[in-house]
Amino acid sequence: MRTIITITREFGAGGGEIGRKLAEALKIPFYDKAIILTAAKQSQLDVESLRKWDERVPKAFGFGQSLFDFYGQPLDEQLFAAQKQAIVNLAEQGSCVLVGRNADYILKEYDHVCNVFIYAGFDWRVNRMSGKMPELTRSKVAMETKAVDKARRKYCEFYTGREWGKTDSFDLCLNSERLGIDRCVSVIIHALKYSE
Amino acid sequence: MRTIITITREFGAGGGEIGRKLAEALKIPFYDKAIILTAAKQSQLDVESLRKWDERVPKAFGFGQSLFDFYGQPLDEQLFAAQKQAIVNLAEQGSCVLVGRNADYILKEYDHVCNVFIYAGFDWRVNRMSGKMPELTRSKVAMETKAVDKARRKYCEFYTGREWGKTDSFDLCLNSERLGIDRCVSVIIHALKYSE
Repeated sequence: MRTIITITREFGAGGGEIGRKLAEALKIPFYDKAIILTAAKQSQLDVESLRKWDERVPKAFGFGQSLFDFYGQPLDEQLFAAQKQAIVNLAEQGSCVLVGRNADYILKEYDHVCNVFIYAGFDWRVNRMSGKMPELTRSKVAMETKAVDKARRKYCEFYTGREWGKTDSFDLCLNSERLGIDRCVSVIIHALKYSE
Repeated sequence: MRTIITITREFGAGGGEIGRKLAEALKIPFYDKAIILTAAKQSQLDVESLRKWDERVPKAFGFGQSLFDFYGQPLDEQLFAAQKQAIVNLAEQGSCVLVGRNADYILKEYDHVCNVFIYAGFDWRVNRMSGKMPELTRSKVAMETKAVDKARRKYCEFYTGREWGKTDSFDLCLNSERLGIDRCVSVIIHALKYSE
């Protein structure tokens, strides 16, 4: 049976790692930033523009003429449309794990989609990311964590009208600090298996 | 190993049923309204007062002299203190499932506590409760569902200062509409087992 798992995650909570391990265990493809490349290939947009605005809302959206490209369409709308199409195409190909980029919202009319939210306490997330980025001070990592969360929240609310991280959008929400990364993977697999 | 499972739930989402089945499967005691009886036995309060204010904040709290009993303490503070003590006593006795009454907050300093939130779409919850209460019209059940959710939300925010149903407070949050009642039970057991 086709299974699409979307993972929405707080920065540093390990959603990417959980997604990768899940895809490995289920032997299905894993997509996070790769969605961008797929979107770029399928559209006229260049990879660098997509990278720059990935999961962000342009600050001056709607106010700056510079945001309109030569097609007369705001860049980010075009980007969102390209990413949306890429996500739909990937989901149509078969089972996969999709991380971020509002995939839960984009695929909301699809069957066999399991939407997961991964979250954890702020301090735990900062500690975890500090371990991965020893070149940065802890306070720099804390600032970055807040900034990324804020960008993802705005990105979600801007494009979906939904409040980011609210339980309603998800089948299950797991606290990776309390359960641990591997147990999150195992709990998701168990939740999926039972339904087959 | 001692395991305390607290369940916070939206009205009609099946949190009580999940809790009962979980307790049965794990062969441990289940407490929901029984917490009130324990509290009453351990305090000077009568069961009827406790039942009346169970999971509610008195409307006129702080403004009505009538809310003060002959000890000069507002009734609901005394009630909350009695319930809190009852929950601590039950948790001290050994493994159990506790439903509602902010048990997650009351036991927040305890080890081996797994906090679960059970939620579901509003229409699904109303349909489910309508099936259980055939004597009521659907719109009456819908009104009651909203009222109980609102009372629980206020009760939680009044006593804990936490936003009700926000993921932060929980180890895992399960959508009973999407997963089904039995799968929720199974997922919680799986999440617990893995940690032993």
